[in-house]
Amino acid sequence: MTLETISEQKCFGGVQGVYRHDSAETKTPMRFAVYRPPQAEAGPVPVLWWLSGLTCTEENFITKAGAQRYAAEHGLMLVAPDTSPRGLDLPGEHDDYDFGSGAGFYVDATEAPWSAHYRMYSYLLHELPALVAAQFPMDPARQSIFGHSMGGHGALVLALRNPDRYRSVSAFAPIVAPSRVPWGEKAFTGYLGPDRAAWAAYDATALVPESGWRTPILIDQGEADTFLDTQLTPEVFADVAGHSGVSVTLRLQPGYDHSYYFIATFMAEHVAHHAAALTERLGP
Amino acid sequence: MTLETISEQKCFGGVQGVYRHDSAETKTPMRFAVYRPPQAEAGPVPVLWWLSGLTCTEENFITKAGAQRYAAEHGLMLVAPDTSPRGLDLPGEHDDYDFGSGAGFYVDATEAPWSAHYRMYSYLLHELPALVAAQFPMDPARQSIFGHSMGGHGALVLALRNPDRYRSVSAFAPIVAPSRVPWGEKAFTGYLGPDRAAWAAYDATALVPESGWRTPILIDQGEADTFLDTQLTPEVFADVAGHSGVSVTLRLQPGYDHSYYFIATFMAEHVAHHAAALTERLGP
Repeated sequence: MTLETISEQKCFGGVQGVYRHDSAETKTPMRFAVYRPPQAEAGPVPVLWWLSGLTCTEENFITKAGAQRYAAEHGLMLVAPDTSPRGLDLPGEHDDYDFGSGAGFYVDATEAPWSAHYRMYSYLLHELPALVAAQFPMDPARQSIFGHSMGGHGALVLALRNPDRYRSVSAFAPIVAPSRVPWGEKAFTGYLGPDRAAWAAYDATALVPESGWRTPILIDQGEADTFLDTQLTPEVFADVAGHSGVSVTLRLQPGYDHSYYFIATFMAEHVAHHAAALTERLGP
Repeated sequence: MTLETISEQKCFGGVQGVYRHDSAETKTPMRFAVYRPPQAEAGPVPVLWWLSGLTCTEENFITKAGAQRYAAEHGLMLVAPDTSPRGLDLPGEHDDYDFGSGAGFYVDATEAPWSAHYRMYSYLLHELPALVAAQFPMDPARQSIFGHSMGGHGALVLALRNPDRYRSVSAFAPIVAPSRVPWGEKAFTGYLGPDRAAWAAYDATALVPESGWRTPILIDQGEADTFLDTQLTPEVFADVAGHSGVSVTLRLQPGYDHSYYFIATFMAEHVAHHAAALTERLGP
C-alpha cells in the first residue's frame, strides 16, 4: 500500500493533506483528503468520514466546508474521499453530471462495464480505512460518518449496514430513498440493473427498519433547496426510522439551499454531534 | 446605479450575494460579493472590506475563508470586490498571472492602455462604496479593510492614504513594499511607468511614516510561505511603522503557507480585530 502525497498544508494547527494511491477495488488511482488535527501528534485520534455529493472530488469539502476548525477543537481526523473512480473512459462515463464520473453513488456496481471499477462501497468500507489506519494516526475503534446529498445517502447506507463500525451518522440534505427518486433510479439502474430488489441494499429508507442502528441520527435540510421534494425527501426516511425505533432529528432550515453555504452554516453542530459519540466512554 | 443580482444564498443566518454593475471607473462590468449579516435586517451595519490576492475573483474569499460565521457573530457586512477589470482584451492582459487581469494591484494606472480601465484604487475608494451604501444597509461612518497578499497591499495603501475613512486595517501575508520586490516592480512599471517617484503613493512602507494612521495594525504571515522573503517582507513595514509611531503587530505563524488554509485559520482573530474598532464608541 504505497501512498503518494499530493499536498500537505498547515490548517488550524493541524495538517490538511491530499494523497493518491492505486486502488485494488476500483483498479484506478484514487485521491483522498485527510485532515490531521493537532491532537494526532500525540497518538491515534477518532476519525470522521465525509462523503461528498454529485460532481465533487476530494477537494470541495476541504476548501469550502470550514470543518477543520471544529475537527481541531474536538481532536478528530477528517477523511474525504473522491466520489468515483477517475481516469477511465467507459462508454458514457462523462456524459452526465449525475451518473459515471463524479457520481459513484457509493455502491458496488454489478452491471458491466461499471462493475469492474465502480466499487465505492467496498472501497470505503474496507480498502480506504485499512490504508488510512496504516498510514495515519487513526483509532479504528472510533469511526463516524457524514455527508452531503449523494454523500448523505452514502453515509446513511454505510452506517445502517455497519452499525458496529460507525458510532454516529449525520447528513446534510441526503438522498434518503434513492429507489424512489430520479437521481437514484438512474444510478441504480445503471450500476445495479433493472431488478429493484437489488437496490434495497443501498437505500437508507429500506435499510433502516432492520439496521439495528442505535444512536440518534442528525439530518439538516434547507427548505429553499430546489431538490428537496423531487430528489431528497428526508421526511420519508424520518417517518420509517421513527416507526422502527431509530431516533432521527430532522431539522428543516428556512431559507437555506443545497450549497456549501448551507453546509458550512451547520458544520459546527454536526462535528459536535459526532465528537460526542466518538469521545463517549463505552461499555460498563 | 443599477445592480444585477447574480446570486443570493443564505449563510450563517445572513445572505451571501454576488452582484454585477457597470463601473464608471473601469468602464467594464464589475462583479463583487456582499455578505449581509442577520443584524442588517434591523438597520445599517459596519462594513469590512476584503481585498483578494493575485488570480482571485470575488469568489475565492466568500467560498474559502470561512469569514461569514464571524461577520454574523459581530454583525459586520463583508464586501469582496474582484481584483481587476474583466472582459477586456488589452495587449498582454491575460498573459501573466501577476499582471493584467486578476492583478489590478489596486492602483489607478497612468500608463496606456491600462489607464483607461485599471482604476481599482478609485473604484474601491469612491465608486463601489457609494454603490454599496446606496443598495445595502451599510453604515458609511464605520468602515474597515483587510486583505491577502496583493490584497493586503491594497488594504494597507487604502487605509494609510485615507485614515479618516477606515477605522482599522489588517492583512494576511501582504506585499508591504511593492516598490522593492519583483511582483510590485513589474506591476508598477506597467501601470505607473518607470519613474519610481510615482510608485510611493501605492507603497505601504513609503506611506506609513506620514500617514497619520492611529489604530494598531494586525499582520499575520506564514513562515512556510514560499513568497515570504522575495515578495512579502513584512518586517520591512513593521520596522518603518515602528519608527513612525504606528503600532504593528506582526505575527509570524510557524508552518503556515500562503493559502486560504492559512487565512481561514486566523480569520476569526482578524474579524474580531476589526469588530472591536468598528463597534467602539468614538468621540468624547
